[in-house]
Amino acid sequence: MAAAGRSPGLTVGPGDDAAAWLPAAPTVLVSTDTLVEGVDFERARQSPYEVGLKAWGSSASDLAAMGGEVEFGLVAAVLPPETPLAAVEAIQLGLVEAAARDGAGIGGGDVSAADGPLVLTVTVLGTVPDGRPVTISGGREGDVLLLTGDLGAAAATLEGWRQGDATVPAAWRSRLVAPTARIAEGRALRQAGATAMTDLSDGLLLDAARIAAASRTAVELWADCLPLAAGLRERFGDDAVRLAAAGGEDYELLASLPTDAVERLLQEWRPELAPLRRVGRLGPGDGVRLLECEGGAEFRVGGGLGYQHY
Amino acid sequence: MAAAGRSPGLTVGPGDDAAAWLPAAPTVLVSTDTLVEGVDFERARQSPYEVGLKAWGSSASDLAAMGGEVEFGLVAAVLPPETPLAAVEAIQLGLVEAAARDGAGIGGGDVSAADGPLVLTVTVLGTVPDGRPVTISGGREGDVLLLTGDLGAAAATLEGWRQGDATVPAAWRSRLVAPTARIAEGRALRQAGATAMTDLSDGLLLDAARIAAASRTAVELWADCLPLAAGLRERFGDDAVRLAAAGGEDYELLASLPTDAVERLLQEWRPELAPLRRVGRLGPGDGVRLLECEGGAEFRVGGGLGYQHY
Repeated sequence: MAAAGRSPGLTVGPGDDAAAWLPAAPTVLVSTDTLVEGVDFERARQSPYEVGLKAWGSSASDLAAMGGEVEFGLVAAVLPPETPLAAVEAIQLGLVEAAARDGAGIGGGDVSAADGPLVLTVTVLGTVPDGRPVTISGGREGDVLLLTGDLGAAAATLEGWRQGDATVPAAWRSRLVAPTARIAEGRALRQAGATAMTDLSDGLLLDAARIAAASRTAVELWADCLPLAAGLRERFGDDAVRLAAAGGEDYELLASLPTDAVERLLQEWRPELAPLRRVGRLGPGDGVRLLECEGGAEFRVGGGLGYQHY
Repeated sequence: MAAAGRSPGLTVGPGDDAAAWLPAAPTVLVSTDTLVEGVDFERARQSPYEVGLKAWGSSASDLAAMGGEVEFGLVAAVLPPETPLAAVEAIQLGLVEAAARDGAGIGGGDVSAADGPLVLTVTVLGTVPDGRPVTISGGREGDVLLLTGDLGAAAATLEGWRQGDATVPAAWRSRLVAPTARIAEGRALRQAGATAMTDLSDGLLLDAARIAAASRTAVELWADCLPLAAGLRERFGDDAVRLAAAGGEDYELLASLPTDAVERLLQEWRPELAPLRRVGRLGPGDGVRLLECEGGAEFRVGGGLGYQHY
């Protein structure tokens, strides 16, 4: 698709039958993710450029969740025949710019025309420079759960749009339409000895349940420790915790670490990274449990937390 | 998507944020290709299992065209909500079986539900075990053009379907709905010193024009040397050459080699591989020219050869 922004290791780039690549490290990471118009984005709500940004960010986030670096991506686009060329170029620009921010390029792709929704599949390739990728299955009982950044802005934006609210803050909106992959944070968590890690695409409770299931432990989360997006509590009151815990598309990282690694990591955490906070722990049993605070009672909210299953 | 058929180098497979892979050789090859319902296949004409076979074969063919080996693939599927589970499983079975035939597995993917056509994007990853990948840009004046297999069966099937012909031979039909990537042939051509290579997805003339443009040479093809699918001339007469030269989706390989490498390669070509034939040469100038035979006059067919531009 795009000829711009080549990765240094890309020895054959766009225009040939396949891309050829000399990875910067022995272990290669690869993930593929699809955005579908009307499901993952709506043209009336975000620009084609932002669709490109999101397609890259949501795919690169999967490599961040392994503690990896991204090197390049391939793009497969299915475009309705009436798509204006300017929109195609704007999507491409968003992809190339978002990739460049992560130190990556676009290495080729495939474009089809078909009646139906616009479909954008981005495959992101990268490496783990040293050590092993952090899987979701390595968590152990007693590990502390750490979370990057804050939660709820993307879900609050969707809720605002649904309610016809024209005053959704720009900072919330940009979290939904142009998520940033937490590449540097993932690398730092891997280097500090993260035992399990995932990115939050389907919501904290559901994604935490994936760690619980794969690691064969229970996950305990503390509602009073969940970092809420700025202004979320003011606008939504207690419902803010529901948005933070059950809302999706935050693309923050949730990682488990042994207790003895956590204190030092929190002290040494560099200020240019997204803030890192302790939000829970792994324990015996299975499933996910949201408590009011560490050692507190079960957390209850109106409407329930759809994804809780403990 | 599928948990079956893992590649030996796949250290983290389906179910995690990304796949982790230790490639069998330093140079990694990767290509992504999309099949769209109504454009690349129709449900009334081929089974879901065959759609899986085709999605794999057409993607793996891109790696064959670099002289590479395939190791695994990732699948991104967008399915209409009413898709029966049995159809999803059949697509998956086709993908896994076709991959296994090429010595590869499925390493994960992404499934979305959306109103619209079924969209299947397969990203295939592999390696070049020794030497360099064969690009489309390395052809040199004087090189001989070699072609694997035969041509026209896929185009003849499409033409038969369009005309409502219920007697399309099964052998032709299977070339369209379940193409086999010429992996072993591509490897042999690379090892013999192929200077340029591509797979025939858009038709011989158009794909040859890509070699001509990228290699900055002219391509000369000889109509009397084009290997026609069995029975094609009997059914279509002189129009068979048009189907072979301008019809797409044959997924055969077209490669250029220095003259001195060709004789030995043709003699030593193993009988279990698809037949290899000399079909033309690279010369000075640019574009593609179809002659009646080597040194003969320009080839003319009724209806013209849409893609000829010399």
